[in-house]
Amino acid sequence: MSKLFFRYGAMNSGKSTAMLQVAHNYEERDQRVVLVKSSVDTKGNDQIVSRLGVTRTADILLYPGQDLRAALRERDTESGQDIACVLIDEAQFLTPEQVDQALAIAVLDGIPVVAFGIRTDFRTRAFPGSQRLMEVAHSLQEMKTICRCGSKAIFNARLGEQGIIREGDQVMIDGEQARYEALCARCYLEAEPAAP
Amino acid sequence: MSKLFFRYGAMNSGKSTAMLQVAHNYEERDQRVVLVKSSVDTKGNDQIVSRLGVTRTADILLYPGQDLRAALRERDTESGQDIACVLIDEAQFLTPEQVDQALAIAVLDGIPVVAFGIRTDFRTRAFPGSQRLMEVAHSLQEMKTICRCGSKAIFNARLGEQGIIREGDQVMIDGEQARYEALCARCYLEAEPAAP
Amino acid sequence: MSKLFFRYGAMNSGKSTAMLQVAHNYEERDQRVVLVKSSVDTKGNDQIVSRLGVTRTADILLYPGQDLRAALRERDTESGQDIACVLIDEAQFLTPEQVDQALAIAVLDGIPVVAFGIRTDFRTRAFPGSQRLMEVAHSLQEMKTICRCGSKAIFNARLGEQGIIREGDQVMIDGEQARYEALCARCYLEAEPAAP
Amino acid sequence: MSKLFFRYGAMNSGKSTAMLQVAHNYEERDQRVVLVKSSVDTKGNDQIVSRLGVTRTADILLYPGQDLRAALRERDTESGQDIACVLIDEAQFLTPEQVDQALAIAVLDGIPVVAFGIRTDFRTRAFPGSQRLMEVAHSLQEMKTICRCGSKAIFNARLGEQGIIREGDQVMIDGEQARYEALCARCYLEAEPAAP
Repeated sequence: MSKLFFRYGAMNSGKSTAMLQVAHNYEERDQRVVLVKSSVDTKGNDQIVSRLGVTRTADILLYPGQDLRAALRERDTESGQDIACVLIDEAQFLTPEQVDQALAIAVLDGIPVVAFGIRTDFRTRAFPGSQRLMEVAHSLQEMKTICRCGSKAIFNARLGEQGIIREGDQVMIDGEQARYEALCARCYLEAEPAAP
Repeated sequence: MSKLFFRYGAMNSGKSTAMLQVAHNYEERDQRVVLVKSSVDTKGNDQIVSRLGVTRTADILLYPGQDLRAALRERDTESGQDIACVLIDEAQFLTPEQVDQALAIAVLDGIPVVAFGIRTDFRTRAFPGSQRLMEVAHSLQEMKTICRCGSKAIFNARLGEQGIIREGDQVMIDGEQARYEALCARCYLEAEPAAP
Repeated sequence: MSKLFFRYGAMNSGKSTAMLQVAHNYEERDQRVVLVKSSVDTKGNDQIVSRLGVTRTADILLYPGQDLRAALRERDTESGQDIACVLIDEAQFLTPEQVDQALAIAVLDGIPVVAFGIRTDFRTRAFPGSQRLMEVAHSLQEMKTICRCGSKAIFNARLGEQGIIREGDQVMIDGEQARYEALCARCYLEAEPAAP
Repeated sequence: MSKLFFRYGAMNSGKSTAMLQVAHNYEERDQRVVLVKSSVDTKGNDQIVSRLGVTRTADILLYPGQDLRAALRERDTESGQDIACVLIDEAQFLTPEQVDQALAIAVLDGIPVVAFGIRTDFRTRAFPGSQRLMEVAHSLQEMKTICRCGSKAIFNARLGEQGIIREGDQVMIDGEQARYEALCARCYLEAEPAAP
């Protein structure tokens, strides 16, 4: 039985870099991977962008209503080569149904799925995709990054003029509609709210 | 900064045993622990019961509306000795607010908190307490057990006459109102539904 | 392919309790486990003793020159039931050859092996068994306990009259020939040597 | 107390990429890191080379007899900025003394040290540096890669004409003096020895 992995981390923990590295590890072995990115993340369109400077086009830009398992099967038919691994970027934006499809791909179709994503939004609440991944993934693996204070960052603060924002829409894309900073629990809890 | 740990596992993975062992490790060092159990788990009342045969009374039987941080402070005042660690049994039954209180105890009061609990209910949905713990805990640590097929069990099936039940109340206490079996994802997905 | 697991921890981290819990989890499923203990640990003879108060007799008391795979095969023939899991207590005392046999049991015979043991001796050097386990185990899993200062203990200090001892035989059984204390790295490095 | 981390993995598991990502995470925060590489790895000289295409010059090319803690202190004096983290590439080639110095940097000087390296040589025996790291590191974290068969690779086979080589010098640099392939335990154990 193959497994569904959720590698979660705060923003800027190197998730896309790690995903591109896994793809590279398979392809060096002449094994085929399929790269998926949620269309909800409009930044970079269908590009998987690592902050280290490596970029690559997703094979599937997955829309909220789309069936991941069907999309994958279609891809599979096109090519003569079996899929060895499915990698998902920005997996917090999957719908719960798409996560269940990812589980079925691993468990019933025998293809390991590694989903990379953020655990929680700017109010420390899970995104629909990350919530479902934390419920059903075989393995939850943390990717670490640091807070301004040097501790491990676990939350993603949305930044306002002079502090952090605690109300608003769940999805506002980083660098386009809002600015974010990964913080440790203490810095997050003790931060001043932004001026209105 | 102390941390909030969530040690999750399917039913019968040895969570209560592990919790009693951690308590023992601290007390052997003459360090004080406080044992908390959610009152929602009516089985055994205020007893923390390990299937290995070890049993111990909880210091705090926590009710849904109760403030964990306040309850702890009260305990602390009673005794001359600082609390070195807080241990929580059946933590899936905490309210989200109580989990936030546990985070504050770790981050703001400097006392490590280790919460032991089940990840998901019989329909593979998180309990309110486990959902909040998966959102905010510093560390998610899996406790393993096995499925009937020998694979790792990750789901908790509610058993009916001839199969598994997929509809009903979220909370039905094991051995009192319902019977459960920890299953791997494949055995869970492929199981026949119970006869109505 | 089954795996060889090494669950290591400082002294008094609850390794024997965890091992007895794993045995219980299998047996509750009517699956058969074989419990192995190294004969080098003379404390308790063939008893696996948990500090929580649970005790059980080992199925195989393994002598340094003995072939683990052969001993297991002999056990297997005696019974009509397949072995679902092999559990090893005090695995730091295995010979490197016995660890290689444990790897073969997992990889070639398809039986998962979980070895529980101490990582290093009183001078922070690996035991022969733990060294080989750290080289070849599929998974290294830490079992935690605490230092007198509250930090995580990773070393095992041998105690003398007024401090810790840094010279002597590698194997001196706890409570019989020597006394030990699990310490964090800082407390270990900064400790006064014992008076001669 | 800061910690010493050992992130180990078979060859081509993405260790250098992960190290450069950690450096990036700190520097984005305007925190200073020092990159160390063992001089025993002559490939790329003082360059830290990621197979994803990212390359960077090491701050310290560490020679076998050199004192890491002294080399770091010297670096520290040169600059007005404190060191937030020390990162070590090819850490399997450190001497045991240098690993002890890395532990002292973490524990006594308060600077976290993350060492990246291979666990074992082509005969599945630890390198001196990785052995000492497995003895004393606070945290052992595996970096995964895959075998030709799709399983997790844990061993590094040295390749000969028609099979794998099981005798020879421990250190022969990849791509210069020898060729290697990361294999799972089964593929390694079952492989034909190379023709002499």
